[in-house]
Amino acid sequence: MKPVIVVDLGGTNLRIARVVGNNVEHREIFSTPRGAESIVGLIAEQAMKLSAGTAVGVAVAAPGAVSRGLGGLSKAPNLPELDGYPMAEEIRRLSGLHCMVENDANAYAVGEVTYGAAIGYKSVVVITLGTGIGGGIVLEGRLWRGADGVAAEIGHVCIEENGRRCGCGASGCAEAYGSASSMLRLAKEYGSNATSAREAYELAKNGEQAALKAFKRAGTALGILISSLVNILNPQAVVIGGGGSAAYDLLEPYILEEMKLRTFPLAMRNLQLLRCKLKNYAALLGAAVLLEEQIST
Amino acid sequence: MKPVIVVDLGGTNLRIARVVGNNVEHREIFSTPRGAESIVGLIAEQAMKLSAGTAVGVAVAAPGAVSRGLGGLSKAPNLPELDGYPMAEEIRRLSGLHCMVENDANAYAVGEVTYGAAIGYKSVVVITLGTGIGGGIVLEGRLWRGADGVAAEIGHVCIEENGRRCGCGASGCAEAYGSASSMLRLAKEYGSNATSAREAYELAKNGEQAALKAFKRAGTALGILISSLVNILNPQAVVIGGGGSAAYDLLEPYILEEMKLRTFPLAMRNLQLLRCKLKNYAALLGAAVLLEEQIST
Repeated sequence: MKPVIVVDLGGTNLRIARVVGNNVEHREIFSTPRGAESIVGLIAEQAMKLSAGTAVGVAVAAPGAVSRGLGGLSKAPNLPELDGYPMAEEIRRLSGLHCMVENDANAYAVGEVTYGAAIGYKSVVVITLGTGIGGGIVLEGRLWRGADGVAAEIGHVCIEENGRRCGCGASGCAEAYGSASSMLRLAKEYGSNATSAREAYELAKNGEQAALKAFKRAGTALGILISSLVNILNPQAVVIGGGGSAAYDLLEPYILEEMKLRTFPLAMRNLQLLRCKLKNYAALLGAAVLLEEQIST
Repeated sequence: MKPVIVVDLGGTNLRIARVVGNNVEHREIFSTPRGAESIVGLIAEQAMKLSAGTAVGVAVAAPGAVSRGLGGLSKAPNLPELDGYPMAEEIRRLSGLHCMVENDANAYAVGEVTYGAAIGYKSVVVITLGTGIGGGIVLEGRLWRGADGVAAEIGHVCIEENGRRCGCGASGCAEAYGSASSMLRLAKEYGSNATSAREAYELAKNGEQAALKAFKRAGTALGILISSLVNILNPQAVVIGGGGSAAYDLLEPYILEEMKLRTFPLAMRNLQLLRCKLKNYAALLGAAVLLEEQIST
């Protein structure tokens, strides 16, 4: 099996690795440079270095809506310089390596299903709790990308018609309660001293009522979201990942409480609610799987 | 092409037909008898009559959760006598004809996608507005049944956390606002004189404010539901069917208003919102398609 170069491109960090199967042979982390040329320049340069002539291609997991026609992001709120930029073509031109671009939450989902928490399950919804809420849907072993490549925008599933304002402009999106950022925002509103989601979690574990209340609110919202996903898709498993999943133990009881009330009983009976396993490796490993798939078909 | 016998089994009526392709050669309507033996007896008797030795099998579209292992309904709130009853086996025993049982909303969806409003679309969500809200999901031309055969229980997608009480016990399910029954219930609560959903529609068309307000509320709820479905699945089309779709013209503006606010723009851009075409023939024709599929694989 030949190595694959994979990139987990975020608004803050750019992780690049050489992967063979589920083995990350080498990984480097950079601050994400500004400007499309600098980003693809860094990826191409590092990809050539890591490949050293051996890799079959580069897979970039990127935050935003992926357009297959463009070979890049057609909507990239966290990296606006890449909006409409033909990333795959430029990386190919600069590095000589075949390149594909995939949505980062989709890659994350494929990673967790192939090598992580959901090994052995064929139909899985993966939810990532970060700045927003992202997701990936795997049905009968295949990633469901949607008709326009933008399926699983699950952060904007409404849970409360006239609820909290979401960054998207609508009210009551699940993301406005259940993302890691919203957990912190809620804690502050309730009077917590937390300055990060991580700190809110620690304060809650030490009994701070405001922080506890925030995780209860977030967990309830996530329970409603997951119930909707399960009632629609009837998957075998739901995986909770992303930075916010660090608070899994605080969220789980409220998620389950809401699911018992709202999930269709026959869809609930065999359902597994799982916590992610691969953390920062999920998107890298998933991107590698998707590139191998693309090359072999 | 050989004929297929298809049955649309409802809590009130039982429709049975001989179908070749999309041609309904003969159709009969009966009141649904009470008791599992009487139901399968009537189906077997009429199937043999309509087949006259020519049909390849019987497909029954039935309301409830279908268990493939059982060959029947594992949950049938509208026909409790069929709960856990091996319907397919009994019909086969009595008639000598191969028999399959399928969820009626799934059959309806396949009918509309194959021969109705969504011809030419491969990834479609079909919503049926009746006593409750049902649905069927077709992805890349294939019915998505879910891991346990109970996908598309979309009536119980929450739209409002502390909203109206639903028959399922939870609060704020889409069904509590957008089903045909809920449209009537809302109209009455707002002070309408309507005694049926049909009448509420006519009163609204004649300017009765209470009835108009009910369709506005139902349309808004359906817009939230459809936005969630589209954000999750990114289909090419959404079809609105079932008895409640008779009010499509009153519902559509409110559905679209909510979708413009809540649906991910890239998933909205190419999306078609369609009204069903086949009415009472959708489930019959869809059941025939699913039986042909089963036989040919």
